[in-house]
Amino acid sequence: MFETRLRQAADATEAALDRLLSPESRPGEVIRPARLTEAMRYAALGPGKRVRPFLAIETARLFGVTDAAVVTAAAAIECVHAYSLVHDDLPAMDDDATRRGRATVHIRYDEATAILAGDGLLTLAFDALASLDVPPAVRIDLITGLARASGVGGMVGGQALDLDAGEAVELDAVTTMQAMKTGALIRHAVAAGARLGAAPADDAARLDTYGQALGLAFQIADDLIDATGDAAIAGKATAKDAGRGKRTLVALLGVAAARARLAATVDEGIAALTPFGPAADTLRDAARFIAEREA
Amino acid sequence: MFETRLRQAADATEAALDRLLSPESRPGEVIRPARLTEAMRYAALGPGKRVRPFLAIETARLFGVTDAAVVTAAAAIECVHAYSLVHDDLPAMDDDATRRGRATVHIRYDEATAILAGDGLLTLAFDALASLDVPPAVRIDLITGLARASGVGGMVGGQALDLDAGEAVELDAVTTMQAMKTGALIRHAVAAGARLGAAPADDAARLDTYGQALGLAFQIADDLIDATGDAAIAGKATAKDAGRGKRTLVALLGVAAARARLAATVDEGIAALTPFGPAADTLRDAARFIAEREA
Repeated sequence: MFETRLRQAADATEAALDRLLSPESRPGEVIRPARLTEAMRYAALGPGKRVRPFLAIETARLFGVTDAAVVTAAAAIECVHAYSLVHDDLPAMDDDATRRGRATVHIRYDEATAILAGDGLLTLAFDALASLDVPPAVRIDLITGLARASGVGGMVGGQALDLDAGEAVELDAVTTMQAMKTGALIRHAVAAGARLGAAPADDAARLDTYGQALGLAFQIADDLIDATGDAAIAGKATAKDAGRGKRTLVALLGVAAARARLAATVDEGIAALTPFGPAADTLRDAARFIAEREA
Repeated sequence: MFETRLRQAADATEAALDRLLSPESRPGEVIRPARLTEAMRYAALGPGKRVRPFLAIETARLFGVTDAAVVTAAAAIECVHAYSLVHDDLPAMDDDATRRGRATVHIRYDEATAILAGDGLLTLAFDALASLDVPPAVRIDLITGLARASGVGGMVGGQALDLDAGEAVELDAVTTMQAMKTGALIRHAVAAGARLGAAPADDAARLDTYGQALGLAFQIADDLIDATGDAAIAGKATAKDAGRGKRTLVALLGVAAARARLAATVDEGIAALTPFGPAADTLRDAARFIAEREA
């Protein structure tokens, strides 16, 4: 069930991304340059688990909402995720040559194109949300939520904190950095699904607890993959964090304690779903999937 | 009159940018990291003519609308302009060390911070528009307009075309590239002012003709500054285009013909304002100012 749903969400997201990244320009655009569009497609389409779109889609489904608009909103979140990977991989940032088992965008194209492809994907995400077939007030909430999750007070800020982190970083600071760098967008994906599902306030609050736990779990799992994982399975270089003296929960707590914290975080997220009963089983499975993944 | 209005718009925009770029986080954000926020402020605040905000503010004023929301919307456009300068100045792009007479962001901070500061400013622009104190449908129009003017089919695409341009570029291709790279955001500033002013459709169409002409004029003037200008006055390196074999209207037509085309374009923009009478004098002056500026 879970695997099927995950694949369905990925396929639907892929189709929505393909539409958003059409070589044809939209009204208000002049033309879409071929090479830049191709680089944006390379960055956003293809391999990728589509965890964030899946979370948005499955959360909305919890309230019976399965409109095409949900998939497009999910694809917008994925555009932001994809742009962040392109920029994070740049030589001035994490300097990664491989991502999801393929050359990163600046290796496949060039550095300038990678910067611009990222900029274009970020911008396109807001265009997609603004054009969504839902009431304007809902679109506004989704745009505000995405902007705050991914901007200076969220993902972008988290990446800045990560790059600045010296040797003497404390556990609290690492947790904050991770809540911003990875957590905020995952948490937003769940919140976006709840908003599209017109979730009542108390349900939205429960789902936010779930989303927050999931974001934290995702990053701990990522750190564990880096510390203990196989580069071939991960599809990217591993053992980078230790090599660069970065502070992660694994570095601060050790592998065993990080694994324990991961398990506790997953339990906390799953506990928040109790009132939803079996309808939330897919979201429960998602939490376990995120904790146990190897890539 | 014009100079006073330009300075007033710049001061009001500066105050709005200062608020948007507060070190305090907004609801939905975790924290705003100090160094990144400082880099974003460095990029957006300080010197700058604020031509785009001025155009939005003065166009809305033509319809009697002078709300604070207009200034915030104008500041959002300036955030996008500021981000584009930060990214364009990067070593992988135009590789500029000086901008507005100061060190560029990647020189003053570092390259990773410059990339992230740009990303943060772009994201903040959409946040600002989504939070605007105007009806949701107006906010949506402003967001869509800004996204399409500045994304793959607008500014970002224009920068990609500029970087890709080889030796054999034709006049039409240069005009398209410039309409995207510089023209689209200037045109959007005027359109945003018209939207905020609730301009009737025919007035909006006239203003769009004006905005389009202004965008083209701005770029021709920029090329002339590069070809003939004084680096000390321009506040940035000049004579870069010829040195890199870039195609500009000046390179394709020569200085005299480019000046003639600039004058004709300004006349065309001013002609579109005829039905507005003396109320549009400030916008007329703006067209002349853009054509005659030396920086």
